[in-house]
Amino acid sequence: MKVVLILGSKSDKPVADKAVAVLERFGVDWEIYVASAHRTPERVERIVTESGGDVFICIAGLSAALPGAVASLTLKPVIGVPVSGKVNMDSILSVVQMPPGIPVAAVGLDRGENAALLAVSILSLRDESLAARLADYRMETARKVERDSAEVEEAYASKHGGGGGG
Amino acid sequence: MKVVLILGSKSDKPVADKAVAVLERFGVDWEIYVASAHRTPERVERIVTESGGDVFICIAGLSAALPGAVASLTLKPVIGVPVSGKVNMDSILSVVQMPPGIPVAAVGLDRGENAALLAVSILSLRDESLAARLADYRMETARKVERDSAEVEEAYASKHGGGGGG
Amino acid sequence: MKVVLILGSKSDKPVADKAVAVLERFGVDWEIYVASAHRTPERVERIVTESGGDVFICIAGLSAALPGAVASLTLKPVIGVPVSGKVNMDSILSVVQMPPGIPVAAVGLDRGENAALLAVSILSLRDESLAARLADYRMETARKVERDSAEVEEAYASKHGGGGGG
Amino acid sequence: MKVVLILGSKSDKPVADKAVAVLERFGVDWEIYVASAHRTPERVERIVTESGGDVFICIAGLSAALPGAVASLTLKPVIGVPVSGKVNMDSILSVVQMPPGIPVAAVGLDRGENAALLAVSILSLRDESLAARLADYRMETARKVERDSAEVEEAYASKHGGGGGG
Amino acid sequence: MKVVLILGSKSDKPVADKAVAVLERFGVDWEIYVASAHRTPERVERIVTESGGDVFICIAGLSAALPGAVASLTLKPVIGVPVSGKVNMDSILSVVQMPPGIPVAAVGLDRGENAALLAVSILSLRDESLAARLADYRMETARKVERDSAEVEEAYASKHGGGGGG
Amino acid sequence: MKVVLILGSKSDKPVADKAVAVLERFGVDWEIYVASAHRTPERVERIVTESGGDVFICIAGLSAALPGAVASLTLKPVIGVPVSGKVNMDSILSVVQMPPGIPVAAVGLDRGENAALLAVSILSLRDESLAARLADYRMETARKVERDSAEVEEAYASKHGGGGGG
Amino acid sequence: MKVVLILGSKSDKPVADKAVAVLERFGVDWEIYVASAHRTPERVERIVTESGGDVFICIAGLSAALPGAVASLTLKPVIGVPVSGKVNMDSILSVVQMPPGIPVAAVGLDRGENAALLAVSILSLRDESLAARLADYRMETARKVERDSAEVEEAYASKHGGGGGG
Amino acid sequence: MKVVLILGSKSDKPVADKAVAVLERFGVDWEIYVASAHRTPERVERIVTESGGDVFICIAGLSAALPGAVASLTLKPVIGVPVSGKVNMDSILSVVQMPPGIPVAAVGLDRGENAALLAVSILSLRDESLAARLADYRMETARKVERDSAEVEEAYASKHGGGGGG
Repeated sequence: MKVVLILGSKSDKPVADKAVAVLERFGVDWEIYVASAHRTPERVERIVTESGGDVFICIAGLSAALPGAVASLTLKPVIGVPVSGKVNMDSILSVVQMPPGIPVAAVGLDRGENAALLAVSILSLRDESLAARLADYRMETARKVERDSAEVEEAYASKHGGGGGG
Repeated sequence: MKVVLILGSKSDKPVADKAVAVLERFGVDWEIYVASAHRTPERVERIVTESGGDVFICIAGLSAALPGAVASLTLKPVIGVPVSGKVNMDSILSVVQMPPGIPVAAVGLDRGENAALLAVSILSLRDESLAARLADYRMETARKVERDSAEVEEAYASKHGGGGGG
Repeated sequence: MKVVLILGSKSDKPVADKAVAVLERFGVDWEIYVASAHRTPERVERIVTESGGDVFICIAGLSAALPGAVASLTLKPVIGVPVSGKVNMDSILSVVQMPPGIPVAAVGLDRGENAALLAVSILSLRDESLAARLADYRMETARKVERDSAEVEEAYASKHGGGGGG
Repeated sequence: MKVVLILGSKSDKPVADKAVAVLERFGVDWEIYVASAHRTPERVERIVTESGGDVFICIAGLSAALPGAVASLTLKPVIGVPVSGKVNMDSILSVVQMPPGIPVAAVGLDRGENAALLAVSILSLRDESLAARLADYRMETARKVERDSAEVEEAYASKHGGGGGG
Repeated sequence: MKVVLILGSKSDKPVADKAVAVLERFGVDWEIYVASAHRTPERVERIVTESGGDVFICIAGLSAALPGAVASLTLKPVIGVPVSGKVNMDSILSVVQMPPGIPVAAVGLDRGENAALLAVSILSLRDESLAARLADYRMETARKVERDSAEVEEAYASKHGGGGGG
Repeated sequence: MKVVLILGSKSDKPVADKAVAVLERFGVDWEIYVASAHRTPERVERIVTESGGDVFICIAGLSAALPGAVASLTLKPVIGVPVSGKVNMDSILSVVQMPPGIPVAAVGLDRGENAALLAVSILSLRDESLAARLADYRMETARKVERDSAEVEEAYASKHGGGGGG
Repeated sequence: MKVVLILGSKSDKPVADKAVAVLERFGVDWEIYVASAHRTPERVERIVTESGGDVFICIAGLSAALPGAVASLTLKPVIGVPVSGKVNMDSILSVVQMPPGIPVAAVGLDRGENAALLAVSILSLRDESLAARLADYRMETARKVERDSAEVEEAYASKHGGGGGG
Repeated sequence: MKVVLILGSKSDKPVADKAVAVLERFGVDWEIYVASAHRTPERVERIVTESGGDVFICIAGLSAALPGAVASLTLKPVIGVPVSGKVNMDSILSVVQMPPGIPVAAVGLDRGENAALLAVSILSLRDESLAARLADYRMETARKVERDSAEVEEAYASKHGGGGGG
């Protein structure tokens, strides 16, 4: 099982980094390419048909045609990550508002980590060990929230004395 | 393998109809419920934990918390369908802009059919017969475009004579 | 010299009608096809490479990838017409916000006639007779404004008596 | 009488600081927690049911489900504070556009102080001393505006001489 | 305990109807007035100071200054209901984006019922019988969701036979 | 003293009607023309320079260049009225967001009556009788609000019995 | 003849500076105050009724109620300047979208200089010497554009040699 | 064949720089001017009628009237480049949403290079050597994407060892 990441531009790498970090943690095989739907449509096609990805993560900004272009070339699940810029609604709407027949799974602006987690969730339908690791990850996330809460509560407690803080 | 559809409100049924039609066509098992993240949070929790869905499709409008609420309760892939209303950007952004850690796969406004196709694509990772049927569907869709094109070309041809039309 | 119109969907025909009416008036050769960047990417490629168009007019709604897809396949000028729907900013931004390197000439929402007039303006760089006809068209448009003005002035005059109206 | 503040994320603390400062000034009891509707739904439920808050202030960004989630779990007034980010309309609309039946009292983007003042105003229906202090606060606010005005008038006066300034 | 409703314009009555229906159901005393912050500022002031309302519900469209104007004249909680029109973001943002110091509790576009429920929730801090009735209302709302669900499930069951439906 | 109204298109007449009704009521001299900044720039220039208007009211939709074009041709106050369409933010922003140096006085979407009232307010700086009539108009407007209020209060009273209504 | 500037907050001074610079240049009498529609409604009323302004310039951000509040208290022309912040559309729409009956003359975001120029244009209806100075100002502005053009042309010329530059 | 660039303001030069760099590379003759539709309408007219441009590129922000003003004065193709600022949707919509009859070819926000590439594409209809150079440019752009991809793949490879990277 392999996740293929495609970036519309080299400048989208920071968003990809978040995705790669998650995939690495889950031990999911991945490959990464830069390929532009507009500047290198043939390259996109070659990557999609040759890479053998089980899930595709497409990261792109502006009029983000990449996720839709990949979705038009494969039957595998395609996850689209809109990348922030000067307008933001351009990439969000370009990724989300796909026409009937060719779905893209949009995640939030610059949300590379969520794209990877969604890929893991999809792949865990076939690999139960991934599901177990995902459960761990969730629990860790929850514990992190609790630690953050303790930290915030303490910050106020030390400032306001014994009084108000929860 | 089963897809569980949850509607935030009875009025979202027309969007669900498009999803159900696709699932029926692909012979995918499905169940449908109305359950509101805000009005019946316990009911949502019960459905998510008891239904045994492999993929969830959550359809909701306004501040559409349902997909995120379901995603917070399961490790399975959750697909969110924003429903149109007076503002539209409310449901689109509520479904797409999930915080890090809990992904939702957003599809377009009122795009129930794409939610179902995405679910089929996800399930086809585990069931090759679904992948084959998905390929058929795509081909059919493509042939439909060709028929539409012929129809449009003819409409102009009959109007403008032998001349312009392609 | 030939203008090739591509519609992302049969439902975009009313917008195409406005374009065709202008092209017919100017005696410019045209062809029309329905072809979806997402549902029939190969068909789009075939049309672009085989049609021999000098200018392409691409009409599409939602996440309107068609103009950009065509622009990625040809060196000829590509005009994109966003089509109105439930969101509108989706198609406008998808057509306008192209990445660097692959330009699309965006016109206004549902502005099929302007797409055709822009095509005529582009082709008139090579065909002076088109420029002359374009000048006529402009003059006619201006005279239409004057007639409209007279009509409006009269409507008020007859209502308010000899008094106010200009 | 107690106000319970819940932050969707540790990073929302600067907005909470404004709320805490107001509550401290009014001598209103408060507790603060970090708890995410999406990452720790059970924790949110535990805090809401066990904290005994009379008013809840929920501070969250992105698709800000926290205020609605809390409102679905309590009959007490819930005040939602959208937190600014890359999109802003996401958190504003997620907090404001609640479905019928489960109200949230939305205040402005990052307006922690207004959330606290609204809580004080609500609690003052039961505690007249709070109403008196609120009146003082308003008067002070008004005097601050007058001082600001004097400062601005002077700034211009010293610059432009005796002439123009009011 | 009394809720005072103020409408910016007679045309806002359908939104007020939803609020009045809720208040009547809860047996909460109410009064209603039309008074415009822009056209009748003195009338707004007179109503606010003389009506003796414990909570104010202000319903207004366009640049909806009414809730803020009322909030500037009273220390009581003020709930603002933006009314839909041609732009919608105008009334939503005008109601939500209040400056620091003068809070308004914004509810969703045209959400008169939520304004009333929020008022009931606020008043129930002082009147426990209201809290009990609010709990009933919530339960009823939840049962309505369950009935809706049954209705939707049945609609599909009768259509698709014993097969798919949940 | 004369107000000159210019409509970007004949279809803007309903918005002009509201302006004309106000000007007629105040007995202000007016003239009306259809002239498009884009289709008939010379006609716009002729009208502006020859009409002798003291105030200009320009009514236009889409990319509403007319008010700015008129403002660039005259030193007299120019009032711009954005006209509603499929996007609305296009005309609002085109009228409001003028560059430094050339001001346009923007009023609300389709607000022809406000454009006329603003013109009257401007002209009343020179004609005190207009100021008096404007005061009358305001009082009438306020009385209308009171009558509307009575009507709404009665509508509820007759429905709910002696009880709730204010 | 006097222009009265009112700032909703001390922080709006940079926008006021642009207005004051223009008024000073034209020798128009002016006064400036900070007064908030929400925090000091009585102060706003006192300033409006006592200052004897012929034109009011109101500068405010967020839900910018100040221009409308002033317009509701005077028959003189009121110019509203929306101030930029995190949302921008809040102040723009709050200033522009006034209800029928109470017009505000909106200028662009942070456009203090245009507010002052509009005030000068309005006052010049009564004072011909102002009109003459306004004509000078325009000419100067035009010459500035020509100088800027020369500078830009030169910048390219020196870079590209004798070749391209105009 | 000559491209004439007009900037609405000197501050738009960075966007023009991108256009000039492309035109220089293609050896296309060009001229550049600063001329404002609002501040120097006559200058705009003079440049348009005297410059003999075959294609016009108009670069402007805010309510960007310049492209439309130029389009109203010439039959040649006019390309409009919206320039980013505090709102962005103002310039985008002002450039795109032209009324029927007067087309402008809008490119993306700050996309000077795409404006120039579109101009080259238009001119290449008359000059085949340009078409050849455009093909070269595209190929170079594509190779740049491939190099970027290699760079990104390597960056990950060196970080993660031989494992994951594609």
